[in-house]
Amino acid sequence: MRRQNLAVVLGSVAAHSPLSRADVAGRTGLTRAAVSSLVDELIGRGALSEAETAPSGRVGRPGRALTVSDRGPAGLGLEIGVTHLGACVVDLRGEPRVWRRVERANAGRPVERVLAETAALAAEVEAEAAALGLQVAGRVLAVPGVVPNEPRGLVAHAPNLGWHAVCPADHWPDPAGAPEPENEANLGALAEYWHAEHAGETFVHVSAEAGIGAALVVGGHLFRGARGFAGELGHIPVHPDGVPCACGARGCLEQYAGEVAVLREAGLAHEAGLAQDGDAQPADPVALLAERAVAGDAPALHALERAGRALGLALVSAVNLIDPDGLVLGGAYAELADWLLPAMRAELATRVTVRPWEPQALRSSELGRRGPVLGAAQLTVRRIIADPTLLPAG
Amino acid sequence: MRRQNLAVVLGSVAAHSPLSRADVAGRTGLTRAAVSSLVDELIGRGALSEAETAPSGRVGRPGRALTVSDRGPAGLGLEIGVTHLGACVVDLRGEPRVWRRVERANAGRPVERVLAETAALAAEVEAEAAALGLQVAGRVLAVPGVVPNEPRGLVAHAPNLGWHAVCPADHWPDPAGAPEPENEANLGALAEYWHAEHAGETFVHVSAEAGIGAALVVGGHLFRGARGFAGELGHIPVHPDGVPCACGARGCLEQYAGEVAVLREAGLAHEAGLAQDGDAQPADPVALLAERAVAGDAPALHALERAGRALGLALVSAVNLIDPDGLVLGGAYAELADWLLPAMRAELATRVTVRPWEPQALRSSELGRRGPVLGAAQLTVRRIIADPTLLPAG
Repeated sequence: MRRQNLAVVLGSVAAHSPLSRADVAGRTGLTRAAVSSLVDELIGRGALSEAETAPSGRVGRPGRALTVSDRGPAGLGLEIGVTHLGACVVDLRGEPRVWRRVERANAGRPVERVLAETAALAAEVEAEAAALGLQVAGRVLAVPGVVPNEPRGLVAHAPNLGWHAVCPADHWPDPAGAPEPENEANLGALAEYWHAEHAGETFVHVSAEAGIGAALVVGGHLFRGARGFAGELGHIPVHPDGVPCACGARGCLEQYAGEVAVLREAGLAHEAGLAQDGDAQPADPVALLAERAVAGDAPALHALERAGRALGLALVSAVNLIDPDGLVLGGAYAELADWLLPAMRAELATRVTVRPWEPQALRSSELGRRGPVLGAAQLTVRRIIADPTLLPAG
Repeated sequence: MRRQNLAVVLGSVAAHSPLSRADVAGRTGLTRAAVSSLVDELIGRGALSEAETAPSGRVGRPGRALTVSDRGPAGLGLEIGVTHLGACVVDLRGEPRVWRRVERANAGRPVERVLAETAALAAEVEAEAAALGLQVAGRVLAVPGVVPNEPRGLVAHAPNLGWHAVCPADHWPDPAGAPEPENEANLGALAEYWHAEHAGETFVHVSAEAGIGAALVVGGHLFRGARGFAGELGHIPVHPDGVPCACGARGCLEQYAGEVAVLREAGLAHEAGLAQDGDAQPADPVALLAERAVAGDAPALHALERAGRALGLALVSAVNLIDPDGLVLGGAYAELADWLLPAMRAELATRVTVRPWEPQALRSSELGRRGPVLGAAQLTVRRIIADPTLLPAG
């Protein structure tokens, strides 16, 4: 009961700060005495700050203004991508305070090495956060792979990294401080849900980098499927007799809209470093594609149009099956939205005809490729706001 | 609170009958006095019966045995198919007591006429049920069409019947007694979930007759989508540049695995009455296909194999997106499972490779084409068991 009331008070300040203790009582229906006790505990746990005077213009005795603390507890998000490492720290208000992104060719490199570098990045970023007065209370790692519901802490399969059955905790300097892995598309979708006031309650979020993932938010909650494998958009058959895929099938979406496929079709395989050794630092392939497209390069435009049509086809299946309010193009491909969205919308318009479907129901994410690492960082914060007793008592 | 306790007591007897009042107290943790009061009310509402002596072999004073009533409240399921009308009454134990199925070509006939005949069938069946001591407490109508979440009572679109924006209540002799429409695939899936002890908590149920629908049961609940349109399997693009579809797109599943497509491919269009007038009574096309397939007829076997491959392709998308525990082939196509399942399983085996997938995770329904009308009848019973105050007090 007290746990729930702590969450109600913290949630109320998070949504409407600054508030006085009296304001909190008014909003929550709790007595002033109860609010004071709960607020004291939340201050003790580092979740709330109380300033000397309220910035309100109201007449009368000034209250003290409660705000969610911008020092103290924080969430660390980490990301291992095929071509980069990322890190982000958000404070309890959900504001990003530290960002880091390092280009790094992670595909096929030894797991220990990739995780050791990730741990080193985490340590750097936590030190930087500590200098801002922030203590990391939880760590979540975004990976481009399958994270099953059970057992927790396992990356079952991350084909574009070459990972099979990897437990990050097994390779982390301090296993107790190891991050909890989660699928990057899932985290990107959550970030989008938390970020976009106008996000539907039920939407499909497409997140593409080397692979193509999707995540389903249903009624405001992540839908992970029976085993945690939901949203595997990349292996939807879009042209069943088409291009052979590394998975053993033919015509999977990834063969038309995956990064490698698009770069090849655009004639950019060499420039993007696909032919180089794993340890070389390749050019940013998404930026390269965007640059060519802006310049009107015909092969790049053709490749993006082909990818957009394939993405549209796969999303026709998603719309037919799931009936979402909307679709969001996120991850790196949000930066290619100008060229992908028209073809995607054309496929949807042609093929979704037995139900109402507005072209604007497909939009691109404002978060783009920051989404997954931001979602990873915010997950900890959202958990604390739902249950402030996760923080040590002051 | 009392409502909830009534449901607990009725649910307990439904799951474990016969029980004495003392058994119910033991199972529910309610006091004997409370149980007696609740049981009396449930007997008054017609939901429970109490026999003179318990059939238990236990020593001591014999209790009286409580069972869910096999007289009294009942659910009526109705079904309007493209080529038939159906009706079913189940008692409060969930047992079907009256079945009726009439072959009738409903496609393109005036809505008023189809609904008038359905109402007449309902009246006949209710009279038959009354002779068994059963009073219909709720009516649900299975339709092969889209039933949106809002407004209730509307069939937005049933292309294979030629219906647009039909409210059954507008055409029912007694509007207050009009049935609540629901998509037939949804009802088939619910019937399957209630019937099969081994049904997964999360599964996709494919229901094919003239059209092809699917329904998603997620965590034991029907997933209807943001607007009620989830599970539209028939218009998933399986061969995007393939056969033109009536919906305006190309290569929709329905063009390969829909009844008309299969009959045409099998060379049975004429025999199945596709070329006849709407009012003629056609042969049962599913029985016809099964008969030919049993006889080893090559065009029929080829058509079923092609349909199975197309169904398999569409389900690859469903597995990738939703990650269900299992897939169920229901409706009329369950009767063709011997010929459809091998090709469906082959597609799934070839294309679902990045996650574990057992061939047996796809199975056919035992309920077959009885599923939707049975689910329609059972829905009322399940609602009463969840809230016995839906029944008038005795």
